[in-house]
Amino acid sequence: MPRTLPSTPATDGFWMPSEREPHAGCWMLWPERPDNWRQAAQPAQRACVALAAAISRFEPVTVGVSGALFDQARALLPAGVRVAEMAHDDCWMRDVGPTFLVNAQGERRGVDWRFNAWGGLYFPWDQDERVARKVLELEGCDRYAAPIVNEGGAFHVDGAGTALVTEECLLNPHRNPTLDRAGIERHLKAHLGVSVVVWLGKGIPDDETSGHIDNLACFIRPGEVALTWTDDRRDPQHAVSRDALSRLLDARDARGRRLTVHKLPMPGPLTLSAKEAAGVLPREGTKRRRAGERLAASYINFYLANGAVVMPLLDRRTDRAAASRIKRLFPGRRVVGVPSREILLGGGNIHCLTQQVPARARRRRRAGIARAE
Amino acid sequence: MPRTLPSTPATDGFWMPSEREPHAGCWMLWPERPDNWRQAAQPAQRACVALAAAISRFEPVTVGVSGALFDQARALLPAGVRVAEMAHDDCWMRDVGPTFLVNAQGERRGVDWRFNAWGGLYFPWDQDERVARKVLELEGCDRYAAPIVNEGGAFHVDGAGTALVTEECLLNPHRNPTLDRAGIERHLKAHLGVSVVVWLGKGIPDDETSGHIDNLACFIRPGEVALTWTDDRRDPQHAVSRDALSRLLDARDARGRRLTVHKLPMPGPLTLSAKEAAGVLPREGTKRRRAGERLAASYINFYLANGAVVMPLLDRRTDRAAASRIKRLFPGRRVVGVPSREILLGGGNIHCLTQQVPARARRRRRAGIARAE
Repeated sequence: MPRTLPSTPATDGFWMPSEREPHAGCWMLWPERPDNWRQAAQPAQRACVALAAAISRFEPVTVGVSGALFDQARALLPAGVRVAEMAHDDCWMRDVGPTFLVNAQGERRGVDWRFNAWGGLYFPWDQDERVARKVLELEGCDRYAAPIVNEGGAFHVDGAGTALVTEECLLNPHRNPTLDRAGIERHLKAHLGVSVVVWLGKGIPDDETSGHIDNLACFIRPGEVALTWTDDRRDPQHAVSRDALSRLLDARDARGRRLTVHKLPMPGPLTLSAKEAAGVLPREGTKRRRAGERLAASYINFYLANGAVVMPLLDRRTDRAAASRIKRLFPGRRVVGVPSREILLGGGNIHCLTQQVPARARRRRRAGIARAE
Repeated sequence: MPRTLPSTPATDGFWMPSEREPHAGCWMLWPERPDNWRQAAQPAQRACVALAAAISRFEPVTVGVSGALFDQARALLPAGVRVAEMAHDDCWMRDVGPTFLVNAQGERRGVDWRFNAWGGLYFPWDQDERVARKVLELEGCDRYAAPIVNEGGAFHVDGAGTALVTEECLLNPHRNPTLDRAGIERHLKAHLGVSVVVWLGKGIPDDETSGHIDNLACFIRPGEVALTWTDDRRDPQHAVSRDALSRLLDARDARGRRLTVHKLPMPGPLTLSAKEAAGVLPREGTKRRRAGERLAASYINFYLANGAVVMPLLDRRTDRAAASRIKRLFPGRRVVGVPSREILLGGGNIHCLTQQVPARARRRRRAGIARAE
């Protein structure tokens, strides 16, 4: 069953479904490294326990853990969460895990992108490179080995032929220096099964992923996008969001539709405290965390579980308003907040920690496009 | 889902089904340690590849591999075999894996026995101790933590209320020194869901497991047992088999039936060659392999896959006759031979390397006993 296929998803009739479609489950990884997570990762582990517990109310959750911490994770995680031994370099399952695909017959396969730790930001990354394959083995899914460096947080899809990305990330010279925009687009179309790629410019300020889309904007449903926003003109986020808004309003999706954009006010800006910075053990080869640096905080970084939106709680002053706004964007879903500052301190958030496995379906239909190119 | 339960299988209505009942799949582990496997385990790995390939013709196979050898095992194993990262001390999944149970509603659970490396024969065994739990996690099965040291190769069941064991192994003072026969029997009944335990005496000579039943005898079906045999009175196996035969003929199973015994002539006797012994790297804490020592060779150590018997090929002089005999014992099954001398050199054989997962069933019926005690 878990073969590596020489073809591409698009030629085989596979595409990435939208995150809002039904899931069979969710994969996560256990935070461990003390050079990224303060206090030997214990506060982040507690946050992950709360996140896994929240998601597992709606769908099965599996957490990958290194052999060394297997017993510890098993003891801390709720009994209903499955634990799998899986070495990794850090816990960002969105970025190192596989991108799951489906076809019209309801079969599932996965894309295993090349991974270089967001352009070489953390060393080493050899175990992270193996995670996607290991997850696909355990899920019994055939694998496409994509020939480009990419991360799951670097793209969103509407499940109907359209992908959303940023130039800052996808054209970053530390990822695929020999490919231009057209070359990247060709690979995205082939491996996500989309026909249109909508390019935004920069991601949110001080995002060490070089501007992952999953902190900036996402599809609510085909034809509708949520965009992180601030009205404060002095904040660098303002120009980023304005540029993104203008590109989104100019864009057409795979069906030729214009997009409706919903602004989602950002928290903060939030910064790393001296106490928080002091809890991280610096190490050569790892991006240093410094007191006062801005954190890549965004309410866009939520996860769509079955029937729910699991959203980050980041700032008491703004959490409630953000939750109300998200509730209005997803009227059919429960909105569940999980305190996630400890996750934010490590450079990402709830969407970055998770990877959905689409449900098996008898038949799947991809709305709105004639063909994948 | 993967909870650890405070009760026992018998009180919850669970029992171990017979190996001949339908399987969902089979688990194995990858041989690695150079202090037990000659030539850095490469010949044994090739034998395991052949075994996994043979079994996967009949049911899905998953092989657990340490993180260090994951890529190597993935490259060598057939694409149809699933690979899971799983640290272990050696590859005897029968002994370190869980014992899967079913109930009348078709649910599955597992027993995680305590493990001490066959009475402390190999050091360390801390990773082996975790294997059963890790398999149960991945299978999503609730777990019973049995409070006695035991190994899956130390018992056979007929799936209808009867277990078969040896005194040499189950009463070995290096396993459960504080328990007598009645105490052991109580735990076997509670955790295997049987009402009758048939005790044989010794296992086959020079079996480092201290006489596992799975090298000596097994149920063909309820009421019928196969027993390894030699007519050579000078061979110590002769007295062992004669004693076993007489005990089997005196026994009654859970339905009160007498047992029919089928003799299965043993191969050899086979011994370790000087060249084979020289390929093993000795290490403190590991049983030393010495040229000329007798190998624990038995045709009883086969595996029942769905619709097949996968049997060890051990000696050209006797393999063909053994295969014919096994074919007559299992008229409805295909008999597939796998060359397994390289596995035998490490102290076990095909049954020792495998662990079946029973199929999910709507309803299961346990034939022939009124109740489990």
